[in-house]
Amino acid sequence: MPVQAISWAPSGAVRIVDQRALPETLVHRDLESIDAMAEAIRSLQVRGAPLIGIAAAMGLVAGLRDARRASRGEFLARVGRGAALLASTRPTAVNLRWALERMSAVADSTPGSGAEIWERLHTEASAIWDEDRAMCQRIGEAGLPLIPDGANVLTHCNAGALATGGIGTALAPIYLAHEAGRRVHVFADETRPVLQGARLTAWELTAAHVPCTLIADGVAASLMRAGRVTLVLVGADRIARNGDFANKIGTYPLAVLARHHGVPFYCCAPSSTIDAGVADGDAIPIEERAPEEVTTLAGRAIAPAGIAAYNPAFDVTPAGFVSGFVTDCGILQPPFER
Amino acid sequence: MPVQAISWAPSGAVRIVDQRALPETLVHRDLESIDAMAEAIRSLQVRGAPLIGIAAAMGLVAGLRDARRASRGEFLARVGRGAALLASTRPTAVNLRWALERMSAVADSTPGSGAEIWERLHTEASAIWDEDRAMCQRIGEAGLPLIPDGANVLTHCNAGALATGGIGTALAPIYLAHEAGRRVHVFADETRPVLQGARLTAWELTAAHVPCTLIADGVAASLMRAGRVTLVLVGADRIARNGDFANKIGTYPLAVLARHHGVPFYCCAPSSTIDAGVADGDAIPIEERAPEEVTTLAGRAIAPAGIAAYNPAFDVTPAGFVSGFVTDCGILQPPFER
Repeated sequence: MPVQAISWAPSGAVRIVDQRALPETLVHRDLESIDAMAEAIRSLQVRGAPLIGIAAAMGLVAGLRDARRASRGEFLARVGRGAALLASTRPTAVNLRWALERMSAVADSTPGSGAEIWERLHTEASAIWDEDRAMCQRIGEAGLPLIPDGANVLTHCNAGALATGGIGTALAPIYLAHEAGRRVHVFADETRPVLQGARLTAWELTAAHVPCTLIADGVAASLMRAGRVTLVLVGADRIARNGDFANKIGTYPLAVLARHHGVPFYCCAPSSTIDAGVADGDAIPIEERAPEEVTTLAGRAIAPAGIAAYNPAFDVTPAGFVSGFVTDCGILQPPFER
Repeated sequence: MPVQAISWAPSGAVRIVDQRALPETLVHRDLESIDAMAEAIRSLQVRGAPLIGIAAAMGLVAGLRDARRASRGEFLARVGRGAALLASTRPTAVNLRWALERMSAVADSTPGSGAEIWERLHTEASAIWDEDRAMCQRIGEAGLPLIPDGANVLTHCNAGALATGGIGTALAPIYLAHEAGRRVHVFADETRPVLQGARLTAWELTAAHVPCTLIADGVAASLMRAGRVTLVLVGADRIARNGDFANKIGTYPLAVLARHHGVPFYCCAPSSTIDAGVADGDAIPIEERAPEEVTTLAGRAIAPAGIAAYNPAFDVTPAGFVSGFVTDCGILQPPFER
């Protein structure tokens, strides 16, 4: 049974798994305010494109509990400020903006007082979460036929239960294949610099008893050359209309290497990850994060003091490298219509 | 002025830079015995294919100081045992075996007592070091025309002064270009799992005032796609007769990516790295190292307890991906004759 990454706490706060503490400790944290949620998203306590959309929506609701007695105008102003703050935390993932725009639209169109709007927003955030859980299940079902008995699946970063409200995106077909009794083994790229593969993917697969081998990112090519990779499954943070997609840095080289070695390469994502307003990958903004993610680890310097580091969090894989997009609407091919 | 990685201590021991302590501290360590040198090579205090050949030869001499009063037969037996121990420390680098075989052959063919053979071995070890220093210089001169003013060179692992007795192999053309006043900037792959790029290449380039930007290994492809890499220079641990070569894990994907993006890719190595006895890359033994190199960092777990990790130290790049072999005999193309 995959881990549950998010839920409502009894207090009405948002209960998250603090992903910075994994794999050493499983820490649940109850976030009471919009500021706390914004900080949690910014500092990668909560990460994964689908999950941060859900988290932002739920965080908005939890943080507006104290505004329920406000006037309609005052409440809507609070919604606007909160949504803007949450949207500013991560620039690349489209789900974040998608979820917040949906919440804002619901707030605007709900008649009545702050309390009435708040109730409606609570329902909407829960619906976003429920829909994501159902989407994960449908992504898993769409991808299941791609995974033969005895498959070795290579994945990058964490597009699993820890990245979503459900059983993940790239890992969803793997969980369903495992559940169906197929032998499936995962090569998990450790995914420098933040090591989501080592810390999160290896952790959640191990917790769910799915066989998994951890590798440094530079090992994947040798495995492909040796014929040891059946297929590659990765997630996406944003998919452009033409099928170019942004995902964790290190995804694009995997796509080139998979093509070179004749290994199928699939992108697994809910259809909400498709940003039809973006024509191609060049128009996707790429978040550049602090050099310290590269130059230090666990507080220890792993590079000389003062060294420059270039730390883009994502890269763009052109559509031509993708065997198919495994979505809640089945396996799709671009272009994607509005 | 690049760092000096090895020298004779006044005591007759071998003075090394303990590369495990970099970049935090520059520690020199005087190794008095063959056991100490074997342990230093095995634990990567001393690493880099050319340097471990020199270190093994010098360590043999330092460790046999106490055998100088032994009989000829007894001394030669000590040489044999010492060389066998040192040769067993790392299986992939050919320079290690090459240097030890050279030392053993000199011992066998030198007439006289233990003391006389020891003197001859001391001269031979110093000659191996001197020759390596000269080879580095010639590699640098051969590679210098490849580096235009304003070049951005991408390198992997550490094939620099810390890997040799001189100014390095892959970094040698860079040092000479910098010395000649050309503007040259290096993108250093951090090179997981042991982080030789972050800890060693970034450190020695910074110490020599060569501009350098550190990147996670997964970033190189994006830089190539953006046209930000002029050429790739890497070292080699063993080159087969047909030009396939073994180098640090993560080299082969760089070669495929360089080809895909039309970026020149050169392998820089002394001609002693060519193992004409090995027909092709399939015959090169690949050292697999402990999983803890992947699952822990600075003593902290970065992956869940008990996770399996696959940790090959090297990969093989087929000759067809190499623009040329930059050696002390100029820029060569395979096949290499005996």
